[in-house]
Order: sequence, then structure tokens, then C-alpha cells
Amino acid sequence: MSSLAEIARICGVSVGATSKALSGKSGVSEATRQRILSVAAQHNYRPNRLVHAIQSGRSMTVGLTCNDFRDDFSGRIVEGMIEVLYDANYDAVVISWDLCVHEGEKVLRTFAERRVDGLLMFPPADQPSQAYLQELKNFRRPIVVVDQTFVGVEDYDFVGSQDFEGGELATEHLIASGHRKIANLYHRKTSTGRARLEGFRSAMQKHGLVVHEQWMREIQRYGTDEAYAHAKALLSGENPPSAIVAFNDWVAMDVLAAAHDLGLSVPRDVSVVGFADLKLASVVRPRLTTIAQDPLSIGRRAADRLLQMLQAERDASPPGKPMADRVPVKLVVGESSRTIG
Amino acid sequence: MSSLAEIARICGVSVGATSKALSGKSGVSEATRQRILSVAAQHNYRPNRLVHAIQSGRSMTVGLTCNDFRDDFSGRIVEGMIEVLYDANYDAVVISWDLCVHEGEKVLRTFAERRVDGLLMFPPADQPSQAYLQELKNFRRPIVVVDQTFVGVEDYDFVGSQDFEGGELATEHLIASGHRKIANLYHRKTSTGRARLEGFRSAMQKHGLVVHEQWMREIQRYGTDEAYAHAKALLSGENPPSAIVAFNDWVAMDVLAAAHDLGLSVPRDVSVVGFADLKLASVVRPRLTTIAQDPLSIGRRAADRLLQMLQAERDASPPGKPMADRVPVKLVVGESSRTIG
Repeated sequence: MSSLAEIARICGVSVGATSKALSGKSGVSEATRQRILSVAAQHNYRPNRLVHAIQSGRSMTVGLTCNDFRDDFSGRIVEGMIEVLYDANYDAVVISWDLCVHEGEKVLRTFAERRVDGLLMFPPADQPSQAYLQELKNFRRPIVVVDQTFVGVEDYDFVGSQDFEGGELATEHLIASGHRKIANLYHRKTSTGRARLEGFRSAMQKHGLVVHEQWMREIQRYGTDEAYAHAKALLSGENPPSAIVAFNDWVAMDVLAAAHDLGLSVPRDVSVVGFADLKLASVVRPRLTTIAQDPLSIGRRAADRLLQMLQAERDASPPGKPMADRVPVKLVVGESSRTIG
Repeated sequence: MSSLAEIARICGVSVGATSKALSGKSGVSEATRQRILSVAAQHNYRPNRLVHAIQSGRSMTVGLTCNDFRDDFSGRIVEGMIEVLYDANYDAVVISWDLCVHEGEKVLRTFAERRVDGLLMFPPADQPSQAYLQELKNFRRPIVVVDQTFVGVEDYDFVGSQDFEGGELATEHLIASGHRKIANLYHRKTSTGRARLEGFRSAMQKHGLVVHEQWMREIQRYGTDEAYAHAKALLSGENPPSAIVAFNDWVAMDVLAAAHDLGLSVPRDVSVVGFADLKLASVVRPRLTTIAQDPLSIGRRAADRLLQMLQAERDASPPGKPMADRVPVKLVVGESSRTIG
């Protein structure tokens, strides 16, 4: 790989003439142009995008503050984003979730110094600091928030899933299968968790069913053994539910584990519905009944939206109101739920 | 966020003077410097790293051609890389695996144009094209290959796992538990799969055990239902094995599913050992016995190595021989394997 300066040196001409020859501009003789092009090909010349970035005021990079990408939900969102950005000649500069949580402001400053054209942001925390929100405000580049919202970012464009509808769907499925004693392992600290919980309450209310508060268990710290402990307590209690709506597939896996460890069988003794339709949902036995999200579309649509905003900026179009794009979900009936008499 | 030019305009001074004031260089009066610093703070001035990149010839970015990051193995490798790069003020420009597979040469050209300082590379294919290998050769920047090797990249630095030792460990565990009829679901198309298979053969030989070819099943296309079909055929055959060594945890999950679907119980009817120790290994029932890898260390050590190579380059030190760094693995005994009489 060779730079402009190296090609100029090899040809014994000025950098300016080399640049003109390589970019097809006039001001250099045809013979010289041919010689420069030939040397460039021979020495694997690659144009320097950084120079172009400075000249155009567009870095052609997008900052991506990631979720923890430890399963195929986050992974496929990121894949969808990178795919769209790549097709539009943008690069994705990726920062991991832990760094965003612990060094949120510094991460944003780094992105600003790097002159990213915009930001695709998985929210880094349920309660971001004032300093973080201020840095975000100062950022003044287009931002699309992905998957979840948090307090302080309501004014940004958003692409996520139909979480409320998904919560309803999961609950309706169990009700239609004859279940009345339905528990919920919810996670209120995230906007997705709150919407799914509202969907659950809405479905229960529509069908005139009582939400038993003793079966409503909040997961405070996601990713710990709390969900497993709640599931075990619910299933070994005096009046166990016949079905459990889980915040997501990982929580549904915890329910399967708790049932197994108590010597219970799913779905014979308890039905469970997850959320996400991760790869593992169809690999585990019993296969999970779950609400399928569409992470690839979320990623693609978020990146598409950001590119639209960047185009509008170049066209000096009015920015328009922030929009919330919620990608549809659907029920996938597996083997972890059954009809009861 | 404001640029140098904007601060200069607001202050009514030249860009040169503004640059001197902000970078602490001499050539501008103290009063002017104070005024410029004050305006810069007020308008959220952020230095332009792109300018610095061009001036220094170092872009302070590293290209990262990723695995499919759809589970926590790949995800944590990437996290480890980003963490180390971030601490050293490098950014990671990430390209997804699918793009690397289908547009490998173009991806490399893009990285060259972006002037990345080096490359952290998950191999994109088991048999890369000649054009790809040529583009890689022309790249002429430090490269560290991660997790797997492929034909044509033997000359690069490498960070991965002790796959051979892991294959041995998994097999030794089963032998020590009394198993003699041991099957293997292997994946020879990857270097990791080949090394694990060699470890298996080595352990069998050490203990004077025969490798029954009818129990050796090759997974040709990873990620399809082939592993599940092989497991089902093995377990429902005339002379089923008492234990199965699986290429990785996903394949072990397929064995659990096949056993379940045949009405068999793990580990009562068959023992199985996975490889990776993914998050799901301890969530599923029975918990997987598996060979734990250390993806965070792999990612960190790969990035550390690349930074060392970049430093050596700046110091004009001799490059040294490419090294292969294999992060240790360890046996995690779960519930999917048992001692037999």
C-alpha cells in the first residue's frame, strides 16, 4: 500500500500533479498522467480517506456505542448496521458497552475528536449522568438511539421493537391456551422491560383477568441469578402459577433451569414464554415459545435512518421531528407452552 | 462541538494562532491565548484527530474484521480488543464477518484507504481466494490473526486458544470417567476443529483406546442441522457410544437436543463434553461439561500484541518472528458427563 506522497516521489513529480492525475482532474499532461497511474497501480496506491475527510468536512465514519454483543440479538443488530454503513461507504467505529457505561462522556468526546458524522447508540445506562447528557447535547451530530430509550434521550430518533405488542402477544397466547394463573418475571429498569410489562397488563385487563401481585416478580439486577431464584420461589410456592411470561429468552432459560432443578417438567407443570427468539431458543429442549424480534432489521433501519439524517443535513433540509420506528414482532410457538383444560 | 476554524472565526484570529494557543505552543500573546481558550471551552471545542492523523502518519485506528459476534465467545474477544485499544487511544473500525467473507478484498482496500495502523483479523474463510491473500500481502501493516488460522496466513502473529490441549482434556475426562466407547463430532474445516480432533486422537492413543471410525462424524457445514442429525444417528444406531466429544458448546447443545428427542437422558444414557464455556453452558440443564476458553484474554492479548508491533515499528526495531500465543483452557465439569462402571 502506497500513499500519494510516495507515488509522487517515485514519479519525480509534485504531490499536486500526482493528485490531479489520480483524481482525473486537468492540469497534467496525458503522458505524465499515464505514467503516474501506472506507478500507482504497480505500488498498490490507496487514496487517503483521511485527507478527503478533512477536505469535505465529512469523516465518513459513524460511532457505534454497542450493547454487550454477547448474543445474537445484539450481534445481528450490529451486523445490520455495519452492512448498511458499508454499502454507503461509511465505517463504523465501535465502542463496547462497558466502556460506554463507565466512561460515557470520554467516549463521546473521543467520537467528537474523531469527527464521526453521526452516532448509533445503544443506551449505556438506565440513569445516565447529567454530565453525560450534557456532552450528548454538545455533540450536535445526528444520533439514532437503538433498542432501548432512557431518561434524557426522548428527543432523539429511535429504532427498536414493538415491545408493548410483544408483551401482549405473549400473554394472549397463554390466555388463549387456557391459562389464568399467569406470572411475570419483568425488568422495569429498561424501557423494553417496561413496555413488555404494560403489554402484559393490557392483555390481562382485556380478558378480565386479575394480575396476582404475588406472581409479579421484578428482576432488579439483570444477568445475575435473581431471575432463577424468583422462578424457583414461584414454582415451589403454595399457589404456583400455571404459566410464566419471561422478560426475555435468557430469563425463560432460567425458568427452564429452575423447573428442572425442582423436578418439574416444562410444559407439563408450567408453561413459559420468552422474548427475542435467540438462536438458543430453537436449540434448547423444550424449544422456547417466544416473541421473535428482528434484530437485523433493527440494525439496518437504524443505520438507514442515520444516513437519511446525514443526507438531509447536506441538503440543508429541515431536520423534521424525531421518529420512533418499532420493528414488528411475532409469536413463535415452541414446546415450552401448552394448552391446559 | 466546534472545530479549530470555528473558534478562530469567533475570536477573529488566524487558524494558525488558534492552533498555537490550543496546543500550548509559543507565538501568541498570553492575553490572546486566554481569550482563545475561554472561547474554546465555551463552544465545546474538540481537537480534530483526523488532522493529527495526517500530520503524524498514524491514524490511531485499528481495523477489526470480526467473527459473527453472535455469542459471548466472539463478543468477549471483541470487548477485550476494544478495551485495550481504547486505553491506548486507538479506535476500532469494525467490519462484520459476512462482509469479510463476501467482500474480503474490498474490505482490505477500505482499511488501506482509511489508513488503519494495523489489523486484528478473525479469519474470514477456510480457503481464502488468491486475490484476497495478495491484497493482504500488499497491505503492509502489522496484522494479528485471532482464534483461527487459515491456509496462507501462517506467517502472521496469532492469538488463540490451546485447542489441542483442550481436545485432549475433554477426552481424558471421559476416559477417566470410565468411558471407552467415545464418539467425536468434529469440524475439520477450521484450524480450531483440526487441533481439537488431534487432541482427541492423542488422548485415545495414550490410553490405548481404539478410535471407532463409525463414531467419528464430520460436520461439513457448521451452523446447519448436520450436527443434530449426526448425533441422532449415533445415538439411535446399533452400537451407540457412551460418550460424545463435541466440537463446541453449540454442537453439545445439538447432542442434548438429539438425546431428548430420542427419549434418552443425558448423562444417564450418554455423556457429552462441549468446548468454549459459553454463557448458555451453565444456564442449560443438564449444565454442560465443557472446555472453558478465555475470550476476554484472547482479545486483550491480540490487541496488546498489535500495539507492541506498532511500537516496534515506530522504534524502527527489527520485527522479530511471528509468534503464536495460545491462551490456556480448562475443564469445567458440569452435569452432562458422568462416571460409568
